[in-house]
Amino acid sequence: MRTTIAGRPPRVVAFGGGHGLAAALAAWRRITPELTAVVTVADDGGSSGRIRREMPVLPPGDLRMALAALAGEAEREQTLAALFQHRFGGSGVLAGHPVGNLLLTGLTEMYGGDTVRALDELCSLVGASGRVLPMADEPLDLVARVETADRDDPARVRTIRGQVAIAATPGRVREIRLAPADPVVHPAVLDAIAAADLVSLGPGSWYTSVLPHLLVPRLRAALAATGARVVVVLNLEPQPGETDGFSPEEHLAVLQAHLDGVALHTVIADVESVVDRRGLLDAVRGCGAELLLAPVAEPDGAPRHDPGRLAAALASVVGMR
Amino acid sequence: MRTTIAGRPPRVVAFGGGHGLAAALAAWRRITPELTAVVTVADDGGSSGRIRREMPVLPPGDLRMALAALAGEAEREQTLAALFQHRFGGSGVLAGHPVGNLLLTGLTEMYGGDTVRALDELCSLVGASGRVLPMADEPLDLVARVETADRDDPARVRTIRGQVAIAATPGRVREIRLAPADPVVHPAVLDAIAAADLVSLGPGSWYTSVLPHLLVPRLRAALAATGARVVVVLNLEPQPGETDGFSPEEHLAVLQAHLDGVALHTVIADVESVVDRRGLLDAVRGCGAELLLAPVAEPDGAPRHDPGRLAAALASVVGMR
Repeated sequence: MRTTIAGRPPRVVAFGGGHGLAAALAAWRRITPELTAVVTVADDGGSSGRIRREMPVLPPGDLRMALAALAGEAEREQTLAALFQHRFGGSGVLAGHPVGNLLLTGLTEMYGGDTVRALDELCSLVGASGRVLPMADEPLDLVARVETADRDDPARVRTIRGQVAIAATPGRVREIRLAPADPVVHPAVLDAIAAADLVSLGPGSWYTSVLPHLLVPRLRAALAATGARVVVVLNLEPQPGETDGFSPEEHLAVLQAHLDGVALHTVIADVESVVDRRGLLDAVRGCGAELLLAPVAEPDGAPRHDPGRLAAALASVVGMR
Repeated sequence: MRTTIAGRPPRVVAFGGGHGLAAALAAWRRITPELTAVVTVADDGGSSGRIRREMPVLPPGDLRMALAALAGEAEREQTLAALFQHRFGGSGVLAGHPVGNLLLTGLTEMYGGDTVRALDELCSLVGASGRVLPMADEPLDLVARVETADRDDPARVRTIRGQVAIAATPGRVREIRLAPADPVVHPAVLDAIAAADLVSLGPGSWYTSVLPHLLVPRLRAALAATGARVVVVLNLEPQPGETDGFSPEEHLAVLQAHLDGVALHTVIADVESVVDRRGLLDAVRGCGAELLLAPVAEPDGAPRHDPGRLAAALASVVGMR
């Protein structure tokens, strides 16, 4: 599937993190090689958390996952992608670290802290169809106001710092911000947004992979200024511990509260997953966007986006008049 | 410099470990692409020691160093070689691990413990001019009888286990063995020895990088049976803590005690480093070998083998009638 704009492949920037971003990239790479992943750097859990506590580097996990998602199809490239994702076994200090996290961290160190150079090198090594960039040049922390589920807690709303702590706190996130509040963004990211034909947000953990990009003032300003169509891909189901019981409309309402001048073009939702079609349509129109209901989930009913189906939906946004 | 045997490049197997093996490989690769490094797996120190205590894998350090020494000259290949050698900084559990050790360990794990497959894959990735194989398929320990330097110690000779402990024990190694005593050797190693035109031993730490190969019964038997010329490259200076005050003749005497049917063809020594030329010549002849005294050290006087000069000496052994 190749969709063109003025006879050339569309220039696309995909915002996100984790498995959600990997799903978006798996779809976008079918449409265009002019693809830039802009990846969250606020993770403080697992291997990424252990690494950022040891060394002054960006948490590598979401970056690694995007690299693996963009790897070429040659056998060598797929072997490297599998190695990037392979987690050490054993029972020692290495256990659980994906090899790619250590590789990216080591190469960044070798390049004197230049994460973007290290990412470009690894992209080239795995024959990536696109580029992977961090959403900020410094490690970030999420700070949330969470309404706890504990009825006996006299403070019903508490401030929780860190992605892991937020996900582990039962209750609803009522407000979220970044620390530091106005991180430096690499010029390559701002250039990619300015030159983009399309920018996608989501799918993914709403508070930890999708919203953080809108919380970075320089990213939000670049998004507000770009001529690119901004597409939101909604999740197929709520995220446990983060958005329990959130409907698609509620997801959208949270996003809308953080848009601050960013115009949405289209919202893509899975036609099967939406319960209240009318309510969602109203919410999307309230954002000034179009709703595209399409079969984007895997046909076997698994709660995952199907790359081919999602690509078809995204391509139709590229082609819209 | 290309020396041929019957019109084809000579088939060479280089035994060793650490910097000494890297020096031999830097020389051999100038002569032939038909090069197999057979690398010691008895290290229990540093990063290798930490990894083998965590996971049931071969200590990767010497293997990694050989991979880096054989890396191709393209920019990408040299970047990867530098990354293999780069050691993590920081102050945490990763500090000091060379990235390549983790890469090799991770890939071996991903291949279900198949170190040789992982090495072949990494050789191909760095465009290695040759192949890197482990001298045994299981991690080994060196066990030494050391005559301690402590005059007050009533037991003047003690049994010390482990490469690090042996190197740290002041005194002279009087006897050395491996545990397990008869480790499994990969068929690819035995095939390479059987097919070789030349096999080199050394330079390198005598007790920890050179002798261990002769302590593996299956390697020694393969060496005794091969038609290959066996070349010994002597060190330029004694190894502190291991062979303090050892003359080249004494190095050779220790080696000879472990030959057990292996015929030496030529012993190469640096013409400047040899003090007692007569004594060395007698010792070499006592082994049934020829002595080649050549300028093989770096011209600036650094105690390192110069790859070009060592290659010239090795090539002359290939060409001997």
